[in-house]
Amino acid sequence: MRELLEAVADGSLSPAQAEAELRGYVTGEAGRFDAARDQRRGIPEAIFAAGKSAEQVVALAETALETTDRALLTRVSESQFDALETHLGERAPDATIDRRGTSVRVTTPHHEPPSLDATVGIVTGGTVDEPVADEAAVVCLDAGATVDRVDDIGVAALSRTLDQLDRLREADVLIVAAGREGALPTVVAGLVDTPVIGVPVSSGYGHGGDGEAALDGMLQSCTVLSVVNIDAGFVAGGQATLIARAIDAARD
Amino acid sequence: MRELLEAVADGSLSPAQAEAELRGYVTGEAGRFDAARDQRRGIPEAIFAAGKSAEQVVALAETALETTDRALLTRVSESQFDALETHLGERAPDATIDRRGTSVRVTTPHHEPPSLDATVGIVTGGTVDEPVADEAAVVCLDAGATVDRVDDIGVAALSRTLDQLDRLREADVLIVAAGREGALPTVVAGLVDTPVIGVPVSSGYGHGGDGEAALDGMLQSCTVLSVVNIDAGFVAGGQATLIARAIDAARD
Amino acid sequence: MRELLEAVADGSLSPAQAEAELRGYVTGEAGRFDAARDQRRGIPEAIFAAGKSAEQVVALAETALETTDRALLTRVSESQFDALETHLGERAPDATIDRRGTSVRVTTPHHEPPSLDATVGIVTGGTVDEPVADEAAVVCLDAGATVDRVDDIGVAALSRTLDQLDRLREADVLIVAAGREGALPTVVAGLVDTPVIGVPVSSGYGHGGDGEAALDGMLQSCTVLSVVNIDAGFVAGGQATLIARAIDAARD
Amino acid sequence: MRELLEAVADGSLSPAQAEAELRGYVTGEAGRFDAARDQRRGIPEAIFAAGKSAEQVVALAETALETTDRALLTRVSESQFDALETHLGERAPDATIDRRGTSVRVTTPHHEPPSLDATVGIVTGGTVDEPVADEAAVVCLDAGATVDRVDDIGVAALSRTLDQLDRLREADVLIVAAGREGALPTVVAGLVDTPVIGVPVSSGYGHGGDGEAALDGMLQSCTVLSVVNIDAGFVAGGQATLIARAIDAARD
Amino acid sequence: MRELLEAVADGSLSPAQAEAELRGYVTGEAGRFDAARDQRRGIPEAIFAAGKSAEQVVALAETALETTDRALLTRVSESQFDALETHLGERAPDATIDRRGTSVRVTTPHHEPPSLDATVGIVTGGTVDEPVADEAAVVCLDAGATVDRVDDIGVAALSRTLDQLDRLREADVLIVAAGREGALPTVVAGLVDTPVIGVPVSSGYGHGGDGEAALDGMLQSCTVLSVVNIDAGFVAGGQATLIARAIDAARD
Amino acid sequence: MRELLEAVADGSLSPAQAEAELRGYVTGEAGRFDAARDQRRGIPEAIFAAGKSAEQVVALAETALETTDRALLTRVSESQFDALETHLGERAPDATIDRRGTSVRVTTPHHEPPSLDATVGIVTGGTVDEPVADEAAVVCLDAGATVDRVDDIGVAALSRTLDQLDRLREADVLIVAAGREGALPTVVAGLVDTPVIGVPVSSGYGHGGDGEAALDGMLQSCTVLSVVNIDAGFVAGGQATLIARAIDAARD
Amino acid sequence: MRELLEAVADGSLSPAQAEAELRGYVTGEAGRFDAARDQRRGIPEAIFAAGKSAEQVVALAETALETTDRALLTRVSESQFDALETHLGERAPDATIDRRGTSVRVTTPHHEPPSLDATVGIVTGGTVDEPVADEAAVVCLDAGATVDRVDDIGVAALSRTLDQLDRLREADVLIVAAGREGALPTVVAGLVDTPVIGVPVSSGYGHGGDGEAALDGMLQSCTVLSVVNIDAGFVAGGQATLIARAIDAARD
Amino acid sequence: MRELLEAVADGSLSPAQAEAELRGYVTGEAGRFDAARDQRRGIPEAIFAAGKSAEQVVALAETALETTDRALLTRVSESQFDALETHLGERAPDATIDRRGTSVRVTTPHHEPPSLDATVGIVTGGTVDEPVADEAAVVCLDAGATVDRVDDIGVAALSRTLDQLDRLREADVLIVAAGREGALPTVVAGLVDTPVIGVPVSSGYGHGGDGEAALDGMLQSCTVLSVVNIDAGFVAGGQATLIARAIDAARD
Repeated sequence: MRELLEAVADGSLSPAQAEAELRGYVTGEAGRFDAARDQRRGIPEAIFAAGKSAEQVVALAETALETTDRALLTRVSESQFDALETHLGERAPDATIDRRGTSVRVTTPHHEPPSLDATVGIVTGGTVDEPVADEAAVVCLDAGATVDRVDDIGVAALSRTLDQLDRLREADVLIVAAGREGALPTVVAGLVDTPVIGVPVSSGYGHGGDGEAALDGMLQSCTVLSVVNIDAGFVAGGQATLIARAIDAARD
Repeated sequence: MRELLEAVADGSLSPAQAEAELRGYVTGEAGRFDAARDQRRGIPEAIFAAGKSAEQVVALAETALETTDRALLTRVSESQFDALETHLGERAPDATIDRRGTSVRVTTPHHEPPSLDATVGIVTGGTVDEPVADEAAVVCLDAGATVDRVDDIGVAALSRTLDQLDRLREADVLIVAAGREGALPTVVAGLVDTPVIGVPVSSGYGHGGDGEAALDGMLQSCTVLSVVNIDAGFVAGGQATLIARAIDAARD
Repeated sequence: MRELLEAVADGSLSPAQAEAELRGYVTGEAGRFDAARDQRRGIPEAIFAAGKSAEQVVALAETALETTDRALLTRVSESQFDALETHLGERAPDATIDRRGTSVRVTTPHHEPPSLDATVGIVTGGTVDEPVADEAAVVCLDAGATVDRVDDIGVAALSRTLDQLDRLREADVLIVAAGREGALPTVVAGLVDTPVIGVPVSSGYGHGGDGEAALDGMLQSCTVLSVVNIDAGFVAGGQATLIARAIDAARD
Repeated sequence: MRELLEAVADGSLSPAQAEAELRGYVTGEAGRFDAARDQRRGIPEAIFAAGKSAEQVVALAETALETTDRALLTRVSESQFDALETHLGERAPDATIDRRGTSVRVTTPHHEPPSLDATVGIVTGGTVDEPVADEAAVVCLDAGATVDRVDDIGVAALSRTLDQLDRLREADVLIVAAGREGALPTVVAGLVDTPVIGVPVSSGYGHGGDGEAALDGMLQSCTVLSVVNIDAGFVAGGQATLIARAIDAARD
Repeated sequence: MRELLEAVADGSLSPAQAEAELRGYVTGEAGRFDAARDQRRGIPEAIFAAGKSAEQVVALAETALETTDRALLTRVSESQFDALETHLGERAPDATIDRRGTSVRVTTPHHEPPSLDATVGIVTGGTVDEPVADEAAVVCLDAGATVDRVDDIGVAALSRTLDQLDRLREADVLIVAAGREGALPTVVAGLVDTPVIGVPVSSGYGHGGDGEAALDGMLQSCTVLSVVNIDAGFVAGGQATLIARAIDAARD
Repeated sequence: MRELLEAVADGSLSPAQAEAELRGYVTGEAGRFDAARDQRRGIPEAIFAAGKSAEQVVALAETALETTDRALLTRVSESQFDALETHLGERAPDATIDRRGTSVRVTTPHHEPPSLDATVGIVTGGTVDEPVADEAAVVCLDAGATVDRVDDIGVAALSRTLDQLDRLREADVLIVAAGREGALPTVVAGLVDTPVIGVPVSSGYGHGGDGEAALDGMLQSCTVLSVVNIDAGFVAGGQATLIARAIDAARD
Repeated sequence: MRELLEAVADGSLSPAQAEAELRGYVTGEAGRFDAARDQRRGIPEAIFAAGKSAEQVVALAETALETTDRALLTRVSESQFDALETHLGERAPDATIDRRGTSVRVTTPHHEPPSLDATVGIVTGGTVDEPVADEAAVVCLDAGATVDRVDDIGVAALSRTLDQLDRLREADVLIVAAGREGALPTVVAGLVDTPVIGVPVSSGYGHGGDGEAALDGMLQSCTVLSVVNIDAGFVAGGQATLIARAIDAARD
Repeated sequence: MRELLEAVADGSLSPAQAEAELRGYVTGEAGRFDAARDQRRGIPEAIFAAGKSAEQVVALAETALETTDRALLTRVSESQFDALETHLGERAPDATIDRRGTSVRVTTPHHEPPSLDATVGIVTGGTVDEPVADEAAVVCLDAGATVDRVDDIGVAALSRTLDQLDRLREADVLIVAAGREGALPTVVAGLVDTPVIGVPVSSGYGHGGDGEAALDGMLQSCTVLSVVNIDAGFVAGGQATLIARAIDAARD
């Protein structure tokens, strides 16, 4: 601890980094950031932007960058992204911004990207499922996994699904996002021997709309399948990452 | 009308038959029986036995037989069936009883069975769907349609489904009964060009159980599909019969 | 297959048309379009515009036109329609645009309109049910069926309903759209001997509003009736088309 | 009050009657009985037997008889009724027991039956609605209203309904009980100019079963209609009684 | 009928009025208007403006005025009202417009206002319940009933309720509108001997919000109470009017 | 710790008591018993008997008695109680058994009953609420609080409620149990200045039955009120005990 | 009363204050204000601004200030606050405005702030819970309690929670606000011996979102916990205040 | 294929085994058994006994044993188990029966048990969660994984949870079963870096009972977690097995 405090004293460590090191989390204006989560959990705390002001989003991203050299953000609106980009342009011009759908990942040059020897297959039934799949992809890529995206193979035209069977079987773990009746994860999980994580997507209208029918169907699936909440691409990506990491560790 | 009343007078027509002829329905002790429904609707009124006493079931069956020479009963319990069998043994020993699962059809020798030049395919996902499919089958058979049963081809083992594709394509109209996530009608309807009627079955447990997930999924299906209520085999059979009859009429 | 590739080589067939011919679907920027659905299913894939950007809608419509010489679109907003119209004015000035409510059908001069010898009756309870009925009508008309629209005959003034009974009985299949308590399909189905497809409409407020009461009531109907999801005019139209086609085929 | 206490003292008034007179309710072993409700509200407190022990039911009935010379009981099981009958046979052999379905009304010879110059029409769609209609009828009859029962005229066979239109129009107020989709009150209320009270009945199965679809449909009715809870025959009967009494008072 | 047609011929009757007279309803551009409803039902068809375009609202109002000399409109937005006012200024400058909350009543000088010898008490729990009470009031006033408004007497401050008890007891029928937990109708109905109609109001937030808790509570009320749907002031007013009319008729 | 182990060695402390002392909980055959909960939380762990076998209930009760000299059990069936009584008769003949409704409290002679200088008022609307109130009472009495039961004062007869106002105002904290529409806690909380805890009771039938309407109404109450789950008498009693203890501590 | 009227006559008391003194509530243009609630209930009536016009909010605030020298407002929007501030600047320039999140408290110099010898701990799981906690805090501070805010200690990083255990144990009563799965109140209540009031917060998305999962979880908590509705910070603050006042009274 | 048929001919292969080899599934009297599932999916088809007759269960178990040398059964009742045991005693006396809770695994001596170099931790919150955990354990053990059971560490006594942290961290994948509010998986997943699969258990009563609150809470968890349906121990065990197998394969 002496060392740490000396590093703060001579400026080679910011007070926030020291707090993160000592307590595991940092207390900023926009709340406490769980800087140690990546070490403890294997996946970093992401900043859920929906419902936060642009100022809060920027402040949390800054804290994340300062203490862990990277920031993961989900459900980022246009105006939140603009505020973030402007801010980083001024305060961290050497940061790299990777934006996919509504998900954003920022890294500083100090960040050492990890690498996992494992592939996560990310599958969608149709166009509307893509932002959810993007959210999952960002988490997996951040952790260094290989991501194989297989889009638009919903069961209404079953040959689209079956044509991709070989690729689906090559992944170490599969995330399958589908809305409406959500049958795709069930059909896929009946044909492969890898773990499948179903993600219901909030498409559809009328009774069972907003993803509820898809969630119900995945929970009731007659195949083996685990599920995350509606649109919870981040959680699916996190769970796939934990599995990929366990496989990577075993491969070493 | 004069003729009718004379027929009653000379005993060649029972009062109940005359009432059925004149008003379209008969008022018995256990309620009014819609004797004219078969003529008006193309499918007879069925006696829904669940929640009725054995006495009420027997009385309604007797009225149906007396006025239309046949009776269709659904959701018949063991004890209701025993009461019916005993009663018919005494009062109508020449009646024919056809029992499938919990559905029963009784005909007197006076009944002239119709015949339809059309095939209804009735498909199930698994063992638990069979009583519901039986209920549908009884209605179609009563109307004289050909019934092709294809059982136990749920999507968890997709090759079971695909192996039957040619038979599925040969039917004029398909009823597909499935519980749990109810994906089978969606997969089938994506592969054939005949009308498909989905019947959710009240299997499954936990969230979305009791057929709710299957119903939701069929309503949200990304293929073209119409649906009846959970376990409503009779309604599915009735609707398929109306379609089969229209096809039969056009074939003449 | 050689022939096909030669046709591509000499330009008489676009690559998209060839892909559609060979694989049954086309992979464009805005997703895979199921060009073979019409052949396989008897009804074409429609483009569900709600929730898509104008660019995606236009791109999918173009793919549909290029491979099948027509495009069917539902839930098209004003701005999506404007974008489509502008685009077609430039790229396909000889295309014909047929717009009914929020539904749109585009055909090129190469499209050979089919014709079915069968009538679909499309019935509404009140003014608010009309866009849903329009959606159904577009599908039936596209398939070449005769459509008989009977509007505004809800059961609150029963004589309005009964006055149209003869027309209702003349159709080969009936689509009945109704909101609020959704009793119209039940009353109609009790009076005709043709198949009736109920479409709950998302009118009404308070408990059971947004079409839920209408859906529940149609599922619980004491007459024979099959049902589609709330506002699912396209699905009802598709199912009626499949029935109409079966009747038409039998008539030949 | 002096008089009252003297009457207790000389035995011409029981302590329970005196308490009822003074405070409006009586405190017995099985709870407080609201003896003054009939005077205050125009309808007596009924004893809801479901979920109570036979002992509690008997005790409450005794208190009701002692203080108001009559007892109204609903949802009375066979065993509760047997206990009541046995008890009354011993303790109140001159009481009159009127049992309809699961509803029971007991009066002592001291009870002076009221009489109302008003008719309540009580209508059912089918056999299963009858116990609920019985419950309503008992309350109306207890208050002295004329009750006109019109049974089994559900809308699946609309002519059954229309045949009774004249009788329906003659009542001063209508109670219409219906299960399944519950369309009967809507159809009736569209044809008469008297107040209609809808009672959803817990028939039906699957989605919207247990009377929920009927309740939803009556709340969403496109005609003017007020509603009580599922199976709440007593409440419907009470409300009709209050209306009948107001009309009777105005007729004087 | 000859007379009628001659009246049309000489211009003393418009074609719409003649159609209304002959068939009971009029077919205009914006749908069929049930001009005979007032005679048949005792309350006129109201125009539910929510979800309709201003043009549709104006057209329906015009048809109503033309055939019945008055129009009743509910859920009228600012812009719909402006369009109506402008239109009437041009086409029917002598019409009288009565606007209460979002409800509007228009009468021409030819309208002969009815009068009922009966009082409807309309009660609210708080400020947010007032537009719903206004809707009820407009219907009752249109029918000629006396309306007694008692506002803002919710049970959180019980003395506010009890202070008004005498007024509440003087009405012939009571409408009680309340949101949140909706206890006011229960408390009132326990203290008066007139029929009480509860109207749940869509106030409140969180679980049971939007009027659902109020509806549930009124349906479960331990007093005698009938109920209409959430915010259904028009239906409550209509039902109260039918009761008031029956009392008025009996008083004559 | 040395002391503790020596006490075990010389038999003055059982191993279970020692484990409870050291770790805070005891691991028995039927699960871990949280023996330290009373010290940590101020209320003991109760044994929820519903769904457990009689053997499990007895085993848990024995562990509780052995480590804390008393056992609290809720939702105890007749057969579970018989098993417990038999077992205690043999193994702990000097234990005292206090049974109220379905709740049971057992104490050994070593138990030193606490005493709190605070009164908990426990109020019910009707007879069916009493077992729930009993459950609450057992917890409060176990902690040494004074309990004032006020039964059967539901709002349908408001004078029953108001007659008890003085007693209600004297308590330090109130528990109010009510089923059906659950309005009693709202009315009471509007009249007193003590904390009120509402307990919805699973009475009522139809829509909002099983206590759901009561829960919704209490959550939406327009007065200040906190709530526990349906039938959760134990939780209400526990919360009231914690408040009573805080008041008792402050009084010293 | 004579005195009161003389005070009105000589102007030392406004008519509104006199009405508040005499009847307990004041009738203004925007409804009746329950000026006596603070005395009767121990917490003042707050003005719930959501859904009211700025004019109504200002009018109610003025009535509150005039009769009780302070006003409490919740769910105040920016524009409502601006209107209030402008109005007060003109009419009550010496008033003090305390704004926290969307909650506002206004006091005149005549207000004598109370003081309670008791501490309310107000705890949040994350940033989104803060406006709800603010609402609770305003009520407690208004009553004179000490408030200890402990923010952002959600269980995803359990050390954040455990680090604050000592502070949590020092409070006399705890309010714990949490969204998503709402586990924080359960974890906290398992570790302290003070009453805990859980407040579910309407964060989260998908199934169980909008605070429903948090509410369900708190109602099902395996610890002792009472609950208020989703986002009902005011109710939680009111209940905590009543407990704090009881403790304060006992301490004297 | 020749070989296969010769093996059938000479009796070294049963027809059922040959059908399983050729088509992947076997058609028996009680339905089609998916004999190839284990090879295709990595986990065998289990026989879900609930709702099946004892005869069906025995027949399916026999088919499973005949074709794959083992049978896995879940939700087996006492009487189903007795029938199975009797049948096996006669027909397969050398089979080994392993019964855990309501789950059963039967193996013949020909079965070669696999072995996986991976540990699945199976965790429960309380006694009621154990049958669900048993179901999961049977699947994992069948696949040859090491299972580490950690029972009864619910968060109401947090030290019970934290005491087991080291064991929890040693597993390769964790299954956490919890009922009531279901907070245990969230707390555990916040402290380990392995994949956690939450299983909601159908304990609890009142609102959110039957496992719904637990499911909602796990879906809303603020940590990374995937979920299976309520009580779906088999699915959780299957998913954990797939993960364990992937790790085992990587370790080789």
